[in-house]
Amino acid sequence: MKRIGFQFKVRQDRLEEYKAHHQHVWPEMLDALRAAGWHNYTLFLREDGLVFGYFETEESLAVAQANMAATEVNTRWQEFMSPFTDSHARPDESFVELEAYFHLD
Amino acid sequence: MKRIGFQFKVRQDRLEEYKAHHQHVWPEMLDALRAAGWHNYTLFLREDGLVFGYFETEESLAVAQANMAATEVNTRWQEFMSPFTDSHARPDESFVELEAYFHLD
Repeated sequence: MKRIGFQFKVRQDRLEEYKAHHQHVWPEMLDALRAAGWHNYTLFLREDGLVFGYFETEESLAVAQANMAATEVNTRWQEFMSPFTDSHARPDESFVELEAYFHLD
Repeated sequence: MKRIGFQFKVRQDRLEEYKAHHQHVWPEMLDALRAAGWHNYTLFLREDGLVFGYFETEESLAVAQANMAATEVNTRWQEFMSPFTDSHARPDESFVELEAYFHLD
């Protein structure tokens, strides 16, 4: 099991709306994430819109992202979320992976 | 069990040394963290020295930090790490808590 950390950025002026959508993520998107190997997945937000994501997966961020990229529901979700990024890009195409340098069980 | 996300900053020009110390964290520091309720704790680093921390705990970041602040070994560790921050402050006094807005088991 690998522990993955990544970040991306959302628009500070639309944070409330962005957060509200995440209280009602489509059930089929949640099912797709589970099937794609995203476990114990939490998203955290800084006041300026910097997002930090943490999850656990068997392989790697690249494999977990490829598994999601192959699903139709992910395309719909990312397009739905793209107006919330500065560049109007899909959030999942702007992930920056972070390096894990310490762990304590 | 709460999922906690926080950040702080270390000096970009001393990242390698900082990371190396975290391959050899003192056993008594690890014991203190466990006793203070820090579980499944991982630290991640961005190339510019932004650190993201994730852990799981019973109560809150404030309680987990207070539990550590009460230990002598934490004082020694934080002073040992303070030259690696821009302000030469103790890292644990510059934690910024992040808001969890999404979770999937």
